[in-house]
Amino acid sequence: MTDTAVLAELMTLVAPAKVLTDPASLQAYGTDWTRHYPPAPSAVVLPRTLEQVQAIVRWANRHQVALVPSGGRTGLSGAAVAAHGEVVVAFDLMNQIIGFDAVDRSVVCQPGVITRQLQAFAEENGLYYPVDFASSGSSQVGGNIGTNAGGIKVIRYGMTRNWVAGLKVVTGTGELLELNKGLVKNATGYDLRQLFIGAEGTLGFVVEATLRLERAPRNLTAMVLGTPDFDSIMPVLHAFQGQLDLTAFEFFSDKGLAHILARGDVPAPFETPCPFYALLEFEALNDEVAEQALATFERCVEQGWVLDGVMSQSETQLRNLWKLREYLSETISHFTPYKNDISVTVAKVPAFLREIDAVVSQHYPDFEVVWYGHIGDGNLHLNILKPAHLDKAAFFARCATVNQWVFEIVERYQGSISAEHGVGMIKRDYLHYSRSPAEIACMKAIKAVFDPNGILNPGKIFAPDHQ
Amino acid sequence: MTDTAVLAELMTLVAPAKVLTDPASLQAYGTDWTRHYPPAPSAVVLPRTLEQVQAIVRWANRHQVALVPSGGRTGLSGAAVAAHGEVVVAFDLMNQIIGFDAVDRSVVCQPGVITRQLQAFAEENGLYYPVDFASSGSSQVGGNIGTNAGGIKVIRYGMTRNWVAGLKVVTGTGELLELNKGLVKNATGYDLRQLFIGAEGTLGFVVEATLRLERAPRNLTAMVLGTPDFDSIMPVLHAFQGQLDLTAFEFFSDKGLAHILARGDVPAPFETPCPFYALLEFEALNDEVAEQALATFERCVEQGWVLDGVMSQSETQLRNLWKLREYLSETISHFTPYKNDISVTVAKVPAFLREIDAVVSQHYPDFEVVWYGHIGDGNLHLNILKPAHLDKAAFFARCATVNQWVFEIVERYQGSISAEHGVGMIKRDYLHYSRSPAEIACMKAIKAVFDPNGILNPGKIFAPDHQ
Repeated sequence: MTDTAVLAELMTLVAPAKVLTDPASLQAYGTDWTRHYPPAPSAVVLPRTLEQVQAIVRWANRHQVALVPSGGRTGLSGAAVAAHGEVVVAFDLMNQIIGFDAVDRSVVCQPGVITRQLQAFAEENGLYYPVDFASSGSSQVGGNIGTNAGGIKVIRYGMTRNWVAGLKVVTGTGELLELNKGLVKNATGYDLRQLFIGAEGTLGFVVEATLRLERAPRNLTAMVLGTPDFDSIMPVLHAFQGQLDLTAFEFFSDKGLAHILARGDVPAPFETPCPFYALLEFEALNDEVAEQALATFERCVEQGWVLDGVMSQSETQLRNLWKLREYLSETISHFTPYKNDISVTVAKVPAFLREIDAVVSQHYPDFEVVWYGHIGDGNLHLNILKPAHLDKAAFFARCATVNQWVFEIVERYQGSISAEHGVGMIKRDYLHYSRSPAEIACMKAIKAVFDPNGILNPGKIFAPDHQ
Repeated sequence: MTDTAVLAELMTLVAPAKVLTDPASLQAYGTDWTRHYPPAPSAVVLPRTLEQVQAIVRWANRHQVALVPSGGRTGLSGAAVAAHGEVVVAFDLMNQIIGFDAVDRSVVCQPGVITRQLQAFAEENGLYYPVDFASSGSSQVGGNIGTNAGGIKVIRYGMTRNWVAGLKVVTGTGELLELNKGLVKNATGYDLRQLFIGAEGTLGFVVEATLRLERAPRNLTAMVLGTPDFDSIMPVLHAFQGQLDLTAFEFFSDKGLAHILARGDVPAPFETPCPFYALLEFEALNDEVAEQALATFERCVEQGWVLDGVMSQSETQLRNLWKLREYLSETISHFTPYKNDISVTVAKVPAFLREIDAVVSQHYPDFEVVWYGHIGDGNLHLNILKPAHLDKAAFFARCATVNQWVFEIVERYQGSISAEHGVGMIKRDYLHYSRSPAEIACMKAIKAVFDPNGILNPGKIFAPDHQ
């Protein structure tokens, strides 16, 4: 733990009230959505300016204090957890949108801007921030960048990376780097900006971001289609992708749907029970597009790939269809799910899912497995629900065994052990399933370039060398 | 120069005939389109496999031989020039498309695949590779990645970076890194792939790339609009961007048009003489879109932003309108142009161009200045043509003075001194106008991570430490 004299010095760097050490704050700011690690920070500091962030990092270097960046704390891999006496740097007070340019369609955000706040700002200006996901009501821009957040519109709009036009970061030495300055084109050496996106705060803290906005989508229309088996989902994706510019292509299993319907507040899409469901979305720019979608649907039915389906005819129906998919994560959270967030290239998805499903159901027939995910991107969320009779520790221990088998399959398929949730602490010991020893060595060397004293979020992505 | 015994060892690594030392080959492979530096390589080696590339790099490490990667040699900054006795590694024999997946819409290319070959392959498969530029008939995929090539469709499709789903690179130690493996989503630590894109072969040589393809555009339609002044171009861009998904928004000046018309093989777009012209393109997916375009055109005329215009009604007309812009670079190349490739954020373009134009025309009233570029991306090509009476050396010396003033303005506008042409040797001494000393120090440290012995393309982007 950081000692009192050192913390007293920290208080001189920001308004003293902005250093918190009360147990409730330490508890709240020390954790994320994983809840695997008991939070144990020494203190929480809330800077208001990028100069204060620099001062904090320099202070941390002087006293060898580890810093953990903290945004909306909606992470699912423990990247924002302070479990070892670190000082949490929370960006809640740096939460302003400080610039907007209609011609460039760009917006300058402080790191604590909440995703939904940014989306609303874009909408007020007739534009659109297209990165969207279940936790957008509390996740912050800095955290989105740190994890390269993906979500439900990646098939059309890409990850957060695509929308970052400029970054100001404070590195591990307290140096401020202004990267790319909002330019579309800039071929002046290595694009360092890209390194900080998805680096989980281990190379630098994002203190300002210039994000690009897009024109608002027009007349978004969703279809939910029921398929007779998992394998039929892929030709359905292929058929629609050949005809329409999809803005989303998601899937979920009947078990997932059952949990949603059990809530009682979301209507069933249609009567026919199906083992799997695809949710797709597109802009129905005119009648022709909607007709094309219906014709493609009919062709899929003729081919036997689709058993039943529905297309939204109103904004309300659109929202209701989306609830079938978007409420899943929160709905099953009450069953203490063990979550895996894995990906392979889209073409490999059917064989991959079949292998994993076989392993899990063979060894754990008593576990309920709920599949869903962003199948248009090859990203599957495998959720194993805790049986009521098992206690949490025993359940997680058994899941850890499954984990290894799952990751061995991921490795064989050249996939990713973490498609969009990051590595943090939870996936760190499994990193080698997706990255080679040579790559991991390069990453550590790059870490040493930007953070020579190992001040920034140590122990995340890889174990610290001296642990 | 590399000595004979060392070269003899190199010959054992590849078929001996694949090491060239004849003067014609040294001349041809030692240079790019810049022609500023007399080529002086020791030898040219043409590997056939990635294992041979690894062997060559290890050989270079053993003997401290500098290597210069060579693709289509269409670069405009001297990044592929071997002027100091280096060995050129040319990828001409690694020119196969070795994989294709229709579901993933991805294609696996060796680095020597020519851009047009890739575009044609995509087309044969009903798809589209959207990175396109004047030199696509000879530029190679490896070089495109090394410079993060942009071109004429960036406003819709982005730079080469957006299309690279996976990379195999050989680093400066001969290590093979397989980066991202074609995945859409992969949040497992630093995205090292991004570092190699735009690194001009200074961190590693690309030996294989998985590129994403897009659905083919439908019924592409172009408009050429004449404006009364430069400032009117921006509201025209804004008006069209609010209505249509543009696939291109280019501009050129009357002086550029005059050079094109003087060729005699390209028809004038319309009679009205205008000081500036915008060329925009969109998919006319249906009549409604075309009507919207015409209505926007009329609104621009009413506002006084546009004096005259034309919209393509056929594939032939589309091609002819594009020639007005695409033939520019080659057409003015006969006047020994001094080229600058600069960018700022789009909103700053008018003020920025005005300042630069003022400086150039004030100090060099005898120079003909031809402006054109990708204005939808904030990317301006400033071409100063050599007056017939000046010799080349005197002309370039005077341009170097202009250069500094131009770059001081670029710096003041937080722009890029090289929007899409890279740094190479030509821009290397000006890098500090766009990147801070701290950034440059980080870049050098990263170079040391991947290429500790300084084997790969030394002296490009920044001067070697021991020169």
